[in-house]
Amino acid sequence: MLTIRNWPPEGGVISVGSGVFAESMQEQGANVYQVKWQPPAHGKAELIDILDKLDGRSDIDEANQTAIERFSSAQPVLIGIGIAQEAIPGFGGRMLLHAGPPIAWDKMSGPLRGAVIGAILYEGWADSPDKAEELASKGDIEYSPCHEYSAVGPMAGVISPRMPVFILENRTHGNRSYSTLNEGLGKVLRYGAYSEEVLDRLRWMEKTLAPILKKAVELSGGIDLKSMIAQALHMGDEVHNRNRAGTSLLIRALVPYLVEVDHPQADIRKCLEFINSNDHFFLNLSMPAVKAMLEAAHGIHRSSVVTIMARNGTEFGIKVSGLGNQWFTGPAQIVKGLYFPGYSEKDANPDIGDSAITETAGVGGFAMAAAIPIVQFVGGAPEDAVRFSEKMYSITTTENRHFTIPILNFRGTPTGIDIRKVVETGILPQINTGIAHKDPGVGQVGAGLVNPPWECFEKAIIAFGKEYADGN
Amino acid sequence: MLTIRNWPPEGGVISVGSGVFAESMQEQGANVYQVKWQPPAHGKAELIDILDKLDGRSDIDEANQTAIERFSSAQPVLIGIGIAQEAIPGFGGRMLLHAGPPIAWDKMSGPLRGAVIGAILYEGWADSPDKAEELASKGDIEYSPCHEYSAVGPMAGVISPRMPVFILENRTHGNRSYSTLNEGLGKVLRYGAYSEEVLDRLRWMEKTLAPILKKAVELSGGIDLKSMIAQALHMGDEVHNRNRAGTSLLIRALVPYLVEVDHPQADIRKCLEFINSNDHFFLNLSMPAVKAMLEAAHGIHRSSVVTIMARNGTEFGIKVSGLGNQWFTGPAQIVKGLYFPGYSEKDANPDIGDSAITETAGVGGFAMAAAIPIVQFVGGAPEDAVRFSEKMYSITTTENRHFTIPILNFRGTPTGIDIRKVVETGILPQINTGIAHKDPGVGQVGAGLVNPPWECFEKAIIAFGKEYADGN
Repeated sequence: MLTIRNWPPEGGVISVGSGVFAESMQEQGANVYQVKWQPPAHGKAELIDILDKLDGRSDIDEANQTAIERFSSAQPVLIGIGIAQEAIPGFGGRMLLHAGPPIAWDKMSGPLRGAVIGAILYEGWADSPDKAEELASKGDIEYSPCHEYSAVGPMAGVISPRMPVFILENRTHGNRSYSTLNEGLGKVLRYGAYSEEVLDRLRWMEKTLAPILKKAVELSGGIDLKSMIAQALHMGDEVHNRNRAGTSLLIRALVPYLVEVDHPQADIRKCLEFINSNDHFFLNLSMPAVKAMLEAAHGIHRSSVVTIMARNGTEFGIKVSGLGNQWFTGPAQIVKGLYFPGYSEKDANPDIGDSAITETAGVGGFAMAAAIPIVQFVGGAPEDAVRFSEKMYSITTTENRHFTIPILNFRGTPTGIDIRKVVETGILPQINTGIAHKDPGVGQVGAGLVNPPWECFEKAIIAFGKEYADGN
Repeated sequence: MLTIRNWPPEGGVISVGSGVFAESMQEQGANVYQVKWQPPAHGKAELIDILDKLDGRSDIDEANQTAIERFSSAQPVLIGIGIAQEAIPGFGGRMLLHAGPPIAWDKMSGPLRGAVIGAILYEGWADSPDKAEELASKGDIEYSPCHEYSAVGPMAGVISPRMPVFILENRTHGNRSYSTLNEGLGKVLRYGAYSEEVLDRLRWMEKTLAPILKKAVELSGGIDLKSMIAQALHMGDEVHNRNRAGTSLLIRALVPYLVEVDHPQADIRKCLEFINSNDHFFLNLSMPAVKAMLEAAHGIHRSSVVTIMARNGTEFGIKVSGLGNQWFTGPAQIVKGLYFPGYSEKDANPDIGDSAITETAGVGGFAMAAAIPIVQFVGGAPEDAVRFSEKMYSITTTENRHFTIPILNFRGTPTGIDIRKVVETGILPQINTGIAHKDPGVGQVGAGLVNPPWECFEKAIIAFGKEYADGN
């Protein structure tokens, strides 16, 4: 794969790998050129064999172009707010949606279990946490990833039938996506809290916030979220952990209609104060917006582009455009980052949430260079943020033509993760994320940086090899 | 002033200046070290003499620290909206305020004349443009810089007695500042337009916009503009030519109160649409906010810090903290930048407006590194924006402790222009600005970069020398 000619200069020695050899040679007076190098595919022969068969395959490149073209031409628009069981096709009964790949109750981590208990109480399927837990564990509740229903949820990501959801439509291809409304900070269901305070807030969101916002969205004729994300990237957001600009732009887009909604002024004011108090409010729109774009890119025969990355708090799972409905999973990792006062890594739940859909779409951790202030939240220095974005161009197919990074001379965000490139380079996608406490209901304890486990990509490339290596 | 020891290395030659000497020496085989150097104070003996006398004067440094401490501890808050002649002490009768240093009708440029005519028509002092011009030119109108009344105005900056103005108070020192409300884009008074469309908009602003916003501001209990500017600098604004984040944050701060104002919903909606349609709306708040901060730093005996830079379209003028009420002026320059389609430099009016108060306070052109996307508006590349900010540390006293630049590792903005440093280095303050058409009423024709004329600083340092060089 790598050919070197006429190098090193006469009389020199090339050292590859650990550097111990180089030191020893230098002590003996030789001109040593140390090469920083990792073997492709972690040096695994089976994977190298697959990569070799996929190398130079223009049909795969073309399939990826098709997938990316569908992603790039998608136009996600917020068209309304509905009740989950009415808005999301096929969803209802005693089913709960959750973040990440499929998981059973006995494998669920603390925050996800807490959110499930809270959702059961919210739905009235049980009248105490104990009864809810019994119901949750004995097989009477059907669990499904949000992603199987074109939905996404941050952290635990639990959606129950009666919850209000944003409804987005990709006006180019007609597919829809869904997300709950962001509950704010502190004790919230998405971190596994289920106290009365949490349930009261969810009821207020159902009875007051959602109906008022629904009318404003309808009066607006729909809100173009793609243009809003593009603007937010020029205003210091990366639309995963920094959404201050997105939230501000959303408020600007909604308020001329909000003031005309026929509801008591005090309720409208409370809605505005609720959104205003939470700079993450836009996250529950940036996520389904890029979900709608990525879903348009899914299902392209021969495409090796990743269309989902998601975590349930126990496992990390990905899907690949050309590999249908298969999840490729590995263990969710511990996030490295800045902890809030009083907390440390021992309090952290493994990586959780569907919010890595932002990185899948080339924003979030991939666009950190557009959001330098985020290092004050997730750790690191400004140059790290720039470096993370630059590194992601090594594992992606193209540069986004709508989402650009000012400091990189308005270069498009690194877009379309190619599993071949991840396996060949060993560079894993860079995700930045919130950190949940491992116990239900404690809430966020920090924020930081994390990667998917290597296993997801190893399993995916093996499956991709089986499907396509022989020229199918 | 500059001492070099043990340099160049043995056998080398130092060449200072044009480089011709160095080339000639190199041809003769010498090791030549070319030094990029300009003589201090443009090589003028009189100025060098003054600088020498001011050199190492700790009393001046201490006075500058006092000035900067007052600037830094100022807390500008939007406390209300009033009618100019009622809100601004001493202002009224047949007086018009304008941007920049003092100027008589016969010296005024096109856009300023147009704005004066428009203001006379708006006040009803004349009923036709011809009659207004006659009135304006024959000495019946008293003209004064906005700055003499603690006010600031972008571009022509004309304030007439009946116009509504924002009222700001510096809660630390009690001083107030004022600015009109931004009229929006296109044909507007500040660019010298005075058609019925312009006057109708001003009347709507007086009768509808101002009363509604006034109530919302009062309900809010005051809006902290210093914190808003600090946030906007982390969201891609430099609060002179890019105010998208500031405008968004202002809307967020106002809307919970706006929805409670007892006015017809249609009027409130129109107000919101008016503000929403104009990302420069916040400029008319960032300007008086930093004006209130700088005014607190003015009048400090022995301080060589600049507290005003302002242009009237003909002349550029500055004031210095320790030099009382004197203006030091020079000819306003032509702005170098990007022109809108159909316009070029021959259409440009010389530099105009009080908006250089932002650069005086260390934001605007001084904080361009915080607002990389602005290069798409004023020209240049991202690295130019970073370079401009970095260069300004050479002529300023300190780094702002509230306003920071993320990409420069959260370094404080370069703050407190010291006339000694400007004259010594020959580096002029970097301003970015809109470009007005030279004819009244055409409007903005572009945006770009400009410096003050050298004369302002030469005159100021001579006056400063007279006042303080002998140790007073």
